[in-house]
Amino acid sequence: MAILALHGGAGGDGEWRGMSDLDPDRLVCMQTILNDLGPRLESGDLTALEAVTLAVEALEDEPLYNAGRGSVLAEDERIYMDASIMRGEDQAAGSVVNVERMRHPIRAANLLLKKGWPVMLNAGAADQFAHTNQLEHVDQTWLKTDLRTAQWNKWKSQNSRPGSTDEDDSAVLDHDLDSEEQEGMGTVGAVALDAHGHLAAATSTGGMTGKPVGRIGDTPIIGAGTWCDQTVAVSCTGVGEAFIRTCAAHELAVQFRQPDTSLLEASHRVLEMVNPMGGRGGLIAVSADGQVVMPFQTMLMYRGLWHNGALTTGIGEEIYSE
Amino acid sequence: MAILALHGGAGGDGEWRGMSDLDPDRLVCMQTILNDLGPRLESGDLTALEAVTLAVEALEDEPLYNAGRGSVLAEDERIYMDASIMRGEDQAAGSVVNVERMRHPIRAANLLLKKGWPVMLNAGAADQFAHTNQLEHVDQTWLKTDLRTAQWNKWKSQNSRPGSTDEDDSAVLDHDLDSEEQEGMGTVGAVALDAHGHLAAATSTGGMTGKPVGRIGDTPIIGAGTWCDQTVAVSCTGVGEAFIRTCAAHELAVQFRQPDTSLLEASHRVLEMVNPMGGRGGLIAVSADGQVVMPFQTMLMYRGLWHNGALTTGIGEEIYSE
Repeated sequence: MAILALHGGAGGDGEWRGMSDLDPDRLVCMQTILNDLGPRLESGDLTALEAVTLAVEALEDEPLYNAGRGSVLAEDERIYMDASIMRGEDQAAGSVVNVERMRHPIRAANLLLKKGWPVMLNAGAADQFAHTNQLEHVDQTWLKTDLRTAQWNKWKSQNSRPGSTDEDDSAVLDHDLDSEEQEGMGTVGAVALDAHGHLAAATSTGGMTGKPVGRIGDTPIIGAGTWCDQTVAVSCTGVGEAFIRTCAAHELAVQFRQPDTSLLEASHRVLEMVNPMGGRGGLIAVSADGQVVMPFQTMLMYRGLWHNGALTTGIGEEIYSE
Repeated sequence: MAILALHGGAGGDGEWRGMSDLDPDRLVCMQTILNDLGPRLESGDLTALEAVTLAVEALEDEPLYNAGRGSVLAEDERIYMDASIMRGEDQAAGSVVNVERMRHPIRAANLLLKKGWPVMLNAGAADQFAHTNQLEHVDQTWLKTDLRTAQWNKWKSQNSRPGSTDEDDSAVLDHDLDSEEQEGMGTVGAVALDAHGHLAAATSTGGMTGKPVGRIGDTPIIGAGTWCDQTVAVSCTGVGEAFIRTCAAHELAVQFRQPDTSLLEASHRVLEMVNPMGGRGGLIAVSADGQVVMPFQTMLMYRGLWHNGALTTGIGEEIYSE
């Protein structure tokens, strides 16, 4: 048995209105990743840790997702990326915060995990750590895309500034949504169960369009955006602050410890706890006993799943629900 | 009923050998805080949130604790401070990471909490946020003390660099300990239950002597170093990475949810989960039903408690154990 699940962010209000022009490219990206990594995970060639790292690297490289190249621009028109990763067997973890000059933040987080100490490394020091360890160094020009610059210009002209109840990761880039929702959906994540029964989880993001410089969301926070232990692997997406204030990813593991609780029941309980904090969003999770869930409370969540040889992708609820 | 509990860091191996020359000053600081704030908390003049903020501000001002003025020096001989705070009623939270130029990091975290968004603010942006909001701006020269410079010089001459199993917050400054343990004990924290039955928790630190620039420990991480909900308030101290990898503060709240579990049982379970990650340390916690605990697994933990009018302080286990 082997499972690899991906998300590309949750966002939007109301009913899903079908695919946008860019959605086929987003789904093809997920299909390519799953077709490449799924069989290798199943055969035992890839550990869960390496599978989620490679999957998130590929999502970071896809400019239509808000992570790595194609990250959204902060209020100062620069890109600040966050990523974290965790391994189930030993709860080893790695995280980079507000990095600006690396191609693959998740690989730097993976390297911190493997080195063992420290778990979290910040900003310029993390960029330097990546560079020193021969991870690919890039500049902001390479990371930025025309789409994100256009979104930033629109944000700037509206002079919008998110308040405590506004949405993070809630823009659906090319769907017809309210402007306040067009600010940076597309956080990416992966969870995996490998052929040896081991779990891993990884999450990476550029945050939200126009975010204040220095804002840290839930993505690099172990327990909030990412969690993995011997029982369950979790990656979240949504209004970051609400996921921090509920310790959402860890809370899912905790809920799942309850007797006679399915992973789906546990995940719905968590989203119900996040919601009152202004935190609509979604998550993906896989358990050591082979349950996998991808619930969300928004209009849509980009999802991909490789489950024992079967590949599925989805965006709106009607395509694919648990 | 009102309770205010403080810690000033946990550290050291083996049996406690009695007070050092500086310990009376440390305890006097706690006694002054508790004598000032305890009655105001009991009378209803102070909320739990304001009490833990004022308490931690006073601990930040005491140069013998490793937070605010008197913080330990990082590898580049500069001070980088972390702090976080959380309120029980609504799980509102605030956190500042790697700040360098404010007198009271906990006040900046408090202000973020009150503003409501974002929860976490990083480095220079957080320093600027504090300055813009008229919080006291200081320079590194003011924050540094001769004691911390001497400790840094000793660290530098030994060229020691902590590995994954070494201790954080584990130096006992003027006790006769191994050199690897002399690197920065003294993280401070406070938890409170106010006359209205509300809870709050706060934690602040300078990290560890010689820490890599950019390292983020558990102190600013909601769920790891600090947690508060309607049931329990928690502040942790110890090897930060182990507290992150176990989501220790949130885990305590979770364990305490179990039927027929005392706060002390729950806290011991958490420290037993932290320990295998290389994470000896301690924590303080208070519950809405009036339980208060201050367990630690190290040689000592500086502790102060104001509990319904009675004031107690302690360092080693024999003086004061739960």
